[in-house]
Order: sequence, then structure tokens, then C-alpha cells
Amino acid sequence: MDEDQKYMQAAIDEAKLGLSEGGIPIGAVLVRDGVIISRGHNRRVQDDDPLMHAEINCLRNAGRIGRYGDTVLYSTLMPCYLCAGAVVQFGIPKVVMGESANFAGAEDFLREKGVEVVNLSLPELKKMMAEYIESHADIWNEDIGTL
Amino acid sequence: MDEDQKYMQAAIDEAKLGLSEGGIPIGAVLVRDGVIISRGHNRRVQDDDPLMHAEINCLRNAGRIGRYGDTVLYSTLMPCYLCAGAVVQFGIPKVVMGESANFAGAEDFLREKGVEVVNLSLPELKKMMAEYIESHADIWNEDIGTL
Repeated sequence: MDEDQKYMQAAIDEAKLGLSEGGIPIGAVLVRDGVIISRGHNRRVQDDDPLMHAEINCLRNAGRIGRYGDTVLYSTLMPCYLCAGAVVQFGIPKVVMGESANFAGAEDFLREKGVEVVNLSLPELKKMMAEYIESHADIWNEDIGTL
Repeated sequence: MDEDQKYMQAAIDEAKLGLSEGGIPIGAVLVRDGVIISRGHNRRVQDDDPLMHAEINCLRNAGRIGRYGDTVLYSTLMPCYLCAGAVVQFGIPKVVMGESANFAGAEDFLREKGVEVVNLSLPELKKMMAEYIESHADIWNEDIGTL
């Protein structure tokens, strides 16, 4: 298993943890120097918090680390503008995502701002997210602001 | 006092509340149909939470309101990419800010995405923020990801 897949597996574990809690199955981890320094998952439903996307939760859980220039953010799904905005503002240079088939997100914005974007395009994640969106359309549309 | 000034005063009150707590003096309110439905201020220092910018805190405090198409976000300072990303993702059509002299923020991004941007350019806020940045450069640079 290569490095990207290893860290993505940790993000997938977070997504599944979120799903088991009744939440939206999106997970993220933040990696520095080959070490996962923070984990998080979408907690909109669990915390009734519209801002608690997986990447935001992960960055929040990292605490006040100050500098992000040597970190990589892994997310099971293409980040939206909120999460991409956090990446750009804090200067995270690289984002690795599990898939973008279910959500185009803010890929253009990330690339335009010089962020390296890697899409692993994992069938397992495409299937999990597609099933969730089909069975929970309202919560999903609420999460991305398209209700 | 016109409407914009009235709501901005509520955001200024939030900024001053944050300052009195030892935090970064940035405040925000969310308005719908002429009513302030949520208030917030930067809580990075108070909560040790790097994501808790004023606009994020305000949107979080609003709870799961679902639709944002008829809201206006007031912030004492030009939103950064994180907060502008939230505005764009959730479809908030208008942002009114107190000033942008101390921080250029993500004005271009907001306008590019079709968000109406109004800058009240208030001397009181320029002075308050300039004094804070001068006396707390490290915290400020941490807040905007430029440590």
C-alpha cells in the first residue's frame, strides 16, 4: 500500500465512523512528516453544526499548529469552497482526495491558488457516497448549500 | 442610522466583546428579513480553535438554517478565503464589511462568484484593527495563516 492509500484509509475510517454515528460519511486526516497529526469527519448531523465539514473538523482537531506549509490534507471527497477556502487561507500546499465523481467541489479554485490536487478516484468511495446521497438527499443538499 | 450601519454596530459590539475576552476583535452578524438571526466573533484565542473566525462562529451559531439565499452577512473586517468560501458554498448573496484597509481578504473571489460586496470603510474599525495587529502581530499572522 503506498503512502497516499495508507493515509486515505485513515480518512475512510473516519468517514465510516461518521456514518455509524448517523452522520454524512466524509472523513479527513492531516499529515505532517509522514505522521497523521489530526483526524476528523463531517459532524453536521451529530453536532447540528452546519460548518462541521470533515476537513474543517480535522483542521479544528489539529489545534493551533500555526504553520501548515508542510502538511497534506486527505479527504474522502473533493473539498467544497468552505474547506478549500480553509486550505488556501492556511497555506496547505497539497490536497489528496478519494473521489470527485459525487461532488465537483472547488477543484478549479484550489488549482488556481496553486494547491496541488491529487484525486485517487476510489470506486469504494464513489459507491459509498452515491448510496448516501441517494438515501439522504435532503441532508446532502443542506450540507453543500443547495437545499 | 441606516440599516447597514445598524447591523454593523451589532457586529462591532461582537468584535469588542471578543477583545474584552482577550481575543481577536472581529465580529459578525447574519441578517434575514431585517432581523439579526445570529451573532459571532473570532474565538481562536478563547477556544484554541483555528477555524473559529468571526464569520464561521456566526454561521455556526445560526444553526442548521438550511437556506441562506435571503441572508446578508455583516463582518467588521473583509472575510478571508475560509469565510468567503463559506459564503460562496452556502449561497449567501451579500456581504457587508466594516473595512478592508487592514486585510485585503478574499474580495476578488467573492465578486468573481457573484456575491455583492459592500465596504463601509469605517475609520473606527480601521483604527481598532490596526492597533490590535500592531500589538498582537503573532496572533494576527497565525489567524490568517501567514506565521
